[in-house]
Amino acid sequence: MSLIVQKYGGTSVGSVERIEAVAARIARGHIDGNQLVVVVSAMSGETNRLLGLAADISDQADLREKDVLLSTGEQVTMALLCIALHKRGISAVSYTGRQVPILTDSSYSKARIQEIDGSRIRADLACKKVVVVAGFQGVDPDDNITTLGRGGSDTTAVALAASLNADECQIYTDVDGVYTTDPRVVNDARRLDKITFEEMLEMASQGSKILQIRSVEFAGKYNVPLRVLSSFEEGPGTLISLEENDNMEKPLISGIAFNKDEAKLTIRGIPDQPGVAYKVLGAISEANIEIDVIVQNVAKDNSASITFTVNKTDLSEAETLLQQIAVDLGALEVDSDKHIAKVSIVGVGMRSHAGVAAIMFEALSNEGINIQLITTSEIKITVVIDEKYLELAVRSLHAAFNMAVDTVPLE
Amino acid sequence: MSLIVQKYGGTSVGSVERIEAVAARIARGHIDGNQLVVVVSAMSGETNRLLGLAADISDQADLREKDVLLSTGEQVTMALLCIALHKRGISAVSYTGRQVPILTDSSYSKARIQEIDGSRIRADLACKKVVVVAGFQGVDPDDNITTLGRGGSDTTAVALAASLNADECQIYTDVDGVYTTDPRVVNDARRLDKITFEEMLEMASQGSKILQIRSVEFAGKYNVPLRVLSSFEEGPGTLISLEENDNMEKPLISGIAFNKDEAKLTIRGIPDQPGVAYKVLGAISEANIEIDVIVQNVAKDNSASITFTVNKTDLSEAETLLQQIAVDLGALEVDSDKHIAKVSIVGVGMRSHAGVAAIMFEALSNEGINIQLITTSEIKITVVIDEKYLELAVRSLHAAFNMAVDTVPLE
Repeated sequence: MSLIVQKYGGTSVGSVERIEAVAARIARGHIDGNQLVVVVSAMSGETNRLLGLAADISDQADLREKDVLLSTGEQVTMALLCIALHKRGISAVSYTGRQVPILTDSSYSKARIQEIDGSRIRADLACKKVVVVAGFQGVDPDDNITTLGRGGSDTTAVALAASLNADECQIYTDVDGVYTTDPRVVNDARRLDKITFEEMLEMASQGSKILQIRSVEFAGKYNVPLRVLSSFEEGPGTLISLEENDNMEKPLISGIAFNKDEAKLTIRGIPDQPGVAYKVLGAISEANIEIDVIVQNVAKDNSASITFTVNKTDLSEAETLLQQIAVDLGALEVDSDKHIAKVSIVGVGMRSHAGVAAIMFEALSNEGINIQLITTSEIKITVVIDEKYLELAVRSLHAAFNMAVDTVPLE
Repeated sequence: MSLIVQKYGGTSVGSVERIEAVAARIARGHIDGNQLVVVVSAMSGETNRLLGLAADISDQADLREKDVLLSTGEQVTMALLCIALHKRGISAVSYTGRQVPILTDSSYSKARIQEIDGSRIRADLACKKVVVVAGFQGVDPDDNITTLGRGGSDTTAVALAASLNADECQIYTDVDGVYTTDPRVVNDARRLDKITFEEMLEMASQGSKILQIRSVEFAGKYNVPLRVLSSFEEGPGTLISLEENDNMEKPLISGIAFNKDEAKLTIRGIPDQPGVAYKVLGAISEANIEIDVIVQNVAKDNSASITFTVNKTDLSEAETLLQQIAVDLGALEVDSDKHIAKVSIVGVGMRSHAGVAAIMFEALSNEGINIQLITTSEIKITVVIDEKYLELAVRSLHAAFNMAVDTVPLE
């Protein structure tokens, strides 16, 4: 008998029909003898409907009251799901964040979970009940309703799984797993059976938006095996866990992530001395502009140049700031390019294999794609290229690393 | 400085525009220096929308989960109202039934309030905050969400007013007060400035559906002055309180109530002996059929007849039962009539004035209206007549008691 926490997102519970389908799936899992805790999101569209009502009144709605408002969305879903389970003869009970309780701090709209008391849920599970919990919400020490921010239902599920020491946390969504890369770009992109937390984090932060980064971090920290599955079709999904694939032949690369949301800024001819990077980047981040890739080089004349990327929407503000900084530092020039794309290969396998970078650069070179920037981490190599080559680059890398074929026999 | 509990029903908060109007009204009351606790219903239509979702899944939805579902309606309103108050610079905070807390028993869908802890609200009022409370809901001793049943927001408001020892409980609705009778029937029906709890109870149970009977009983029990006002226009409304009108000239009659929802059943020729009324009416009420007017008479031959009224929807079931009872008792006959109407005159004044009944019967006689049944209480006389004469009867009584004119100068 396994204790499984399941989470169903907004699309999975987006209508009465979808809720019925979820109930049928839960009923099967329950009959199989599992102990089930089910975390639900608001029905798709509901959160936006509620935000719309608030926005019609004020564009500066109080965060406490916004949380009171939004938390009703999951409460509706959990009640409807229990009603659908009862119809199938399954004993089920619903709890709001407060009823569990899921204790959080008081940061309305982005509260952090501090403690979960699992005793009420454990007592229900012992009575063979399915427990349905509202995702995304909690209660602060003064009994105020809080929300964890958008996507917080994933976090609720992982935190509950950790607290209850669950065997697995299953995240049901509208895709059937994590893929080697976006199937819309590469036809033969392959669903991964397994991936490590680290790899998933690198994939997620690069734009594979299946799971909230925070919930993956949390799952990794508490070693909660996480499985991404489709609520629309049957299938094993992708298991995200601590262990590296321990088969003989490790795949070099697990996935290719990419995005076109960023723009590149370069400041050239600045003095190569301590504190310069801080002067350049500090001013940018003080303006609350997020910086992603950063590369610094020193030229022959000992002047330095720094290149970094920001979200395209922040480009004009960042460029204005950088022009000012250039004047202050006596820099040579500033330039920017918004027609760039970022491509990363991710895999824990590259730790123990030399030559991964070489294969990557060769593949890009064979296609005549110029590499503008390179950065690396232990399990990731990222390049910035002209955005018009993005699809070509992803496809050629997918082929170069033979990712369409699962070279590793899975148990 | 007065402590006032205000309650706004579903129509009064039925749209963002209506919520804004309510916020503007509250802001005026707040600026006038009153301490305000505001109880809100779900936006009109919302409760039915939620019930519809549940009904799409099951027509036997679990009552606990139904309460979880429905309680979100008021929670949405209270958050939106607070956001609208903040926009007007008013400090306001919202609480669910659980957050107040309003402790109830565990009778889901029709819970009774057991205790209200007003300390959290009092602390907010002391900080000059407006406190907005979700009507219709509470929490049971095991931290389950309960609802008080439809119309329960009135009960919430009165219970809060009693608990906080408020100076007045104001019920905002879509009518501007309690009238001598239905203005749709009598053109010159007059808004009453004052009415006693007893009179209001007699009016309400007769179909003047402005206030829930339960909330009037509750207000009377704890002597909470209750005021019915319109949320759509300014005006003093009607004050419902313990004191009888203490002016020199008391009005004989405060109002005329009526309904056409009932049907009449008669069983004739039953033995006039102890226990017969119980045998007849016990069987009807065991079938959960509500009985209203009951009249028993003894005929010359010492056989008795009993006449009573039931809701028209229960008529055929009641008649079938009564036929069976007639056989058991050896009764002469059973007959029924669904074309009846009930008309009542209500007024604490009739306690100290003889001749009220005479005026009533004379007025009906002058119009040639036959009286089928008469019952009386201390402050009410009810007659049953043919339904086709209903409007005529109400208008002639309104005129006979000179009710269009407020003969009593109000202070």
